[in-house]
Amino acid sequence: MKSVEELHIIFQKELAQVSFSKEPKELYQPIDYILNLGGKRIRPLFTLLFCEMVGGDYAKAINQAIAIEIFHNFTLMHDDIMDSAPIRRGKEAVHLKWNVNTAILSGDAMLIESYKALFKCDAADQQKVIDAFSKMASEVCEGQQFDMNYETMERVSVKEYINMIRLKTAVLLATCMKIGATLGGASKEDCERAYKIGESLGIAFQLQDDLLDLFSDDSKFGKQVGGDVITQKKTILYLKALELCENRNELQSIFTSKEFDDANKIDQIKKIYKELGIPEIVKSEVEAYYSKASKSVDELDFSPDQKIPFREFVCELMNRKF
Amino acid sequence: MKSVEELHIIFQKELAQVSFSKEPKELYQPIDYILNLGGKRIRPLFTLLFCEMVGGDYAKAINQAIAIEIFHNFTLMHDDIMDSAPIRRGKEAVHLKWNVNTAILSGDAMLIESYKALFKCDAADQQKVIDAFSKMASEVCEGQQFDMNYETMERVSVKEYINMIRLKTAVLLATCMKIGATLGGASKEDCERAYKIGESLGIAFQLQDDLLDLFSDDSKFGKQVGGDVITQKKTILYLKALELCENRNELQSIFTSKEFDDANKIDQIKKIYKELGIPEIVKSEVEAYYSKASKSVDELDFSPDQKIPFREFVCELMNRKF
Repeated sequence: MKSVEELHIIFQKELAQVSFSKEPKELYQPIDYILNLGGKRIRPLFTLLFCEMVGGDYAKAINQAIAIEIFHNFTLMHDDIMDSAPIRRGKEAVHLKWNVNTAILSGDAMLIESYKALFKCDAADQQKVIDAFSKMASEVCEGQQFDMNYETMERVSVKEYINMIRLKTAVLLATCMKIGATLGGASKEDCERAYKIGESLGIAFQLQDDLLDLFSDDSKFGKQVGGDVITQKKTILYLKALELCENRNELQSIFTSKEFDDANKIDQIKKIYKELGIPEIVKSEVEAYYSKASKSVDELDFSPDQKIPFREFVCELMNRKF
Repeated sequence: MKSVEELHIIFQKELAQVSFSKEPKELYQPIDYILNLGGKRIRPLFTLLFCEMVGGDYAKAINQAIAIEIFHNFTLMHDDIMDSAPIRRGKEAVHLKWNVNTAILSGDAMLIESYKALFKCDAADQQKVIDAFSKMASEVCEGQQFDMNYETMERVSVKEYINMIRLKTAVLLATCMKIGATLGGASKEDCERAYKIGESLGIAFQLQDDLLDLFSDDSKFGKQVGGDVITQKKTILYLKALELCENRNELQSIFTSKEFDDANKIDQIKKIYKELGIPEIVKSEVEAYYSKASKSVDELDFSPDQKIPFREFVCELMNRKF
């Protein structure tokens, strides 16, 4: 059984083999570019880890791990256009380094490449893998659409928000784990359990990201603290605060105001959130989703030893930067 | 065995069942919109016709015919963004009726939907169908990229142009036919023949379109005559003319000039092309690709009767608007 570090090295090697140095280079270079920007490779690692946890050999799921990483980067390439995001992993986003048309078309080519890689598995598993993947892929699009809708909607409930992040980010993690379990030979029940584990963890990770955006140690975070406040992103912090505050209008008007400079606005919003106990509330939400996932891992009928690498990786991700 | 008209009615009915009236409506409405703009459904009809020609029941290929129509409309939705095309089949293009982000994301969702529909066939055929489809899908992206590259390239050879239209439009027709043949139970050789037939016909159709753009009866054409001249599109007419004319610079300078009004420019270019015999040259190119396809149809070991609906449909498409 392989450790997270070993699987990471293996995955990086395999991904490096996937070179798109073909013609026309204007189509394929951006794919190599975005895949080589790095990243923690969380999603494919979860596929490989789950495959091994249920007793399979990681090699059975390597093509699908690659498919998932290509798919994830396709969504980043297109999302960056839609969100007008200039930077991706510290480098220029594709739609700026090249142009919007290139980012559209190279993204399309990546989605096709992800299906090609996905299909490389035992014939007996193809239907299950493709069905799980396609369902997820549609839902990720739905999540992105809800996210864009919420930008201009006056009222978004916490429930709607959780469903949006479930679709936009958690179902991908859920599907990584389910596909890993499937290819590792897990029972149907364990594959469904894998999905639920990934879904809960995905929501936990995103809520934690929301929290870290404003309440983290600046130097470790690597991103600008309060970025979500500046861009007026309606994250769980804001939506919970709106639910709990006595004067909605006051919070809304500070949140949307253009009068304050960034630092001042972040300070004011942070103060309100602290008074309302938002960090603690969100922390306990994160904890609840994490516990749910953890209990489901307990229920998997494999030896505790087999669960160690998976648990370690989850812990590493949950503990970052608090 | 069904006629083209019968298959058209059947296909329209089946496509009407594919409704995307789901949430979020901002994502799914544009899909219903573009699929309901009409069109001759040439590609899915060729899938069904080929399936029947080789002795299969059209019903075996209906989901793949739908997959192909969804895929084709996905490419239109994204191409219209890239080409800044305001109109699609007489109606506002999706990126204008909604916005660019919607057209990107709904297009992505369509590509995923096409894979979902594609996969609905006998397990024994899935690998062949998916492989053929994915190869084609990548090539269509490559063709679109070459097309965009050629817009700004000073020199494009006729050979490069033919390869571009092969990738951008002909391989889709080729794959429609190959998938129809595969699902109809044709031999491997006949499936490859189906591909070659579609590829040659696809090139013939596109070259014919290039010709019709400038040399057609205005009233029947339905599009502005000379549209390619106005947008300075380097079609086969222009590239052949550049090869043959004595004064390249003169032709280039008229073609790229902004001094003339549209009608004047079209007249001048048309006169040069006529003097060089371009219409006859391109007609004979069209004829050559058409003959190649026709001979391959002859070689298919099925009764002439079985080939009638397919041949009739090809004739109908070849004879339009001359």
